[in-house]
Amino acid sequence: MSTTIDITEETSAVAKGKAPLIATTTYTGYKKGIAIFDFLLRLGAIVAALAAAGTMGSSEQTLPFFTQFFQFRASYDDLPTFQFFVIAMSIVGGYLVLSLPFSIVLIIRPSAVAPKMLLVALDIVALTLNAAAGGAAAAVVYLAHNGNSSANWLAICQQFGDFCQKVSGAVVASFISAVALVFLVVLSGFALRRH
Amino acid sequence: MSTTIDITEETSAVAKGKAPLIATTTYTGYKKGIAIFDFLLRLGAIVAALAAAGTMGSSEQTLPFFTQFFQFRASYDDLPTFQFFVIAMSIVGGYLVLSLPFSIVLIIRPSAVAPKMLLVALDIVALTLNAAAGGAAAAVVYLAHNGNSSANWLAICQQFGDFCQKVSGAVVASFISAVALVFLVVLSGFALRRH
Repeated sequence: MSTTIDITEETSAVAKGKAPLIATTTYTGYKKGIAIFDFLLRLGAIVAALAAAGTMGSSEQTLPFFTQFFQFRASYDDLPTFQFFVIAMSIVGGYLVLSLPFSIVLIIRPSAVAPKMLLVALDIVALTLNAAAGGAAAAVVYLAHNGNSSANWLAICQQFGDFCQKVSGAVVASFISAVALVFLVVLSGFALRRH
Repeated sequence: MSTTIDITEETSAVAKGKAPLIATTTYTGYKKGIAIFDFLLRLGAIVAALAAAGTMGSSEQTLPFFTQFFQFRASYDDLPTFQFFVIAMSIVGGYLVLSLPFSIVLIIRPSAVAPKMLLVALDIVALTLNAAAGGAAAAVVYLAHNGNSSANWLAICQQFGDFCQKVSGAVVASFISAVALVFLVVLSGFALRRH
């Protein structure tokens, strides 16, 4: 009788505590690798996002001559889309900097679920913001380069060449940051799997 | 001696098979609820995405009069950003239709992991495409409504009022579809959690 009770106790202890522990230790190495890659990818995304915001924010060109239709000076301030781009990419870059401590926590404790859920949810928000800002700025940069004959919008890049180059560079940087965020989200998705 | 061996066998059987099964059956109802909500949200996103593509694709206005600077006719074909918008939103809508069978599979078998992983990965791609298309079209629609004095781009909406209203409606529909996709991705993230 005493033996039988002993068996039941040990079984329930295994079901509660030990069985999940076995599964966790097996995949800790795999998850730690993902967490380290996540941290490095995050560093790359920070550089790209802040480069995009900085390049766009400092884009300004003053022309040495005056024409009938165009002003002397072109700046990102003149186009609301570019202002949105600077704000959105600053938010993305700022969020990514703030997310670094959580990423470090995940390197130290790869099986922690709460910081992982938080990061993946905010990463998706950052990715959406980044894609919207990148797409919007790309649409305006395209118009600046090519103009549109139907709407009678002239290509301003013929006058403001340096301005357009800086702005185009910022859009490319935002696309790099978006690609890094896609990888971050997919990676977190795999890390959230339990097996 | 014989009793001790018996204990070990039963313990390992519990660790391998029974402990995970207990966790799965407890959360099946919760996961089925998420799967049904996922399906309904997907139906809403399909309507919004296809409405966005259809409204933009049918946006066309022919003016009854002629001015010096503007053509008679405005169509989404005239602006490459709007062409991209129609293509991108059609892809998003088409993907969402094709994803319905997988969503039904998840209602029937809420604990299946493979279709869930597939859906969440493709949902993120669709969300990114949707955000980029919506952002790009919104930037051009803003220019069409307000113009830009620095770039000397006139507001074409003063001439093409009906065209602008249709195009603005399409952008709003794409934002609704983007919000639905955000919820779908977050929901799938929660469903992928094992506990």
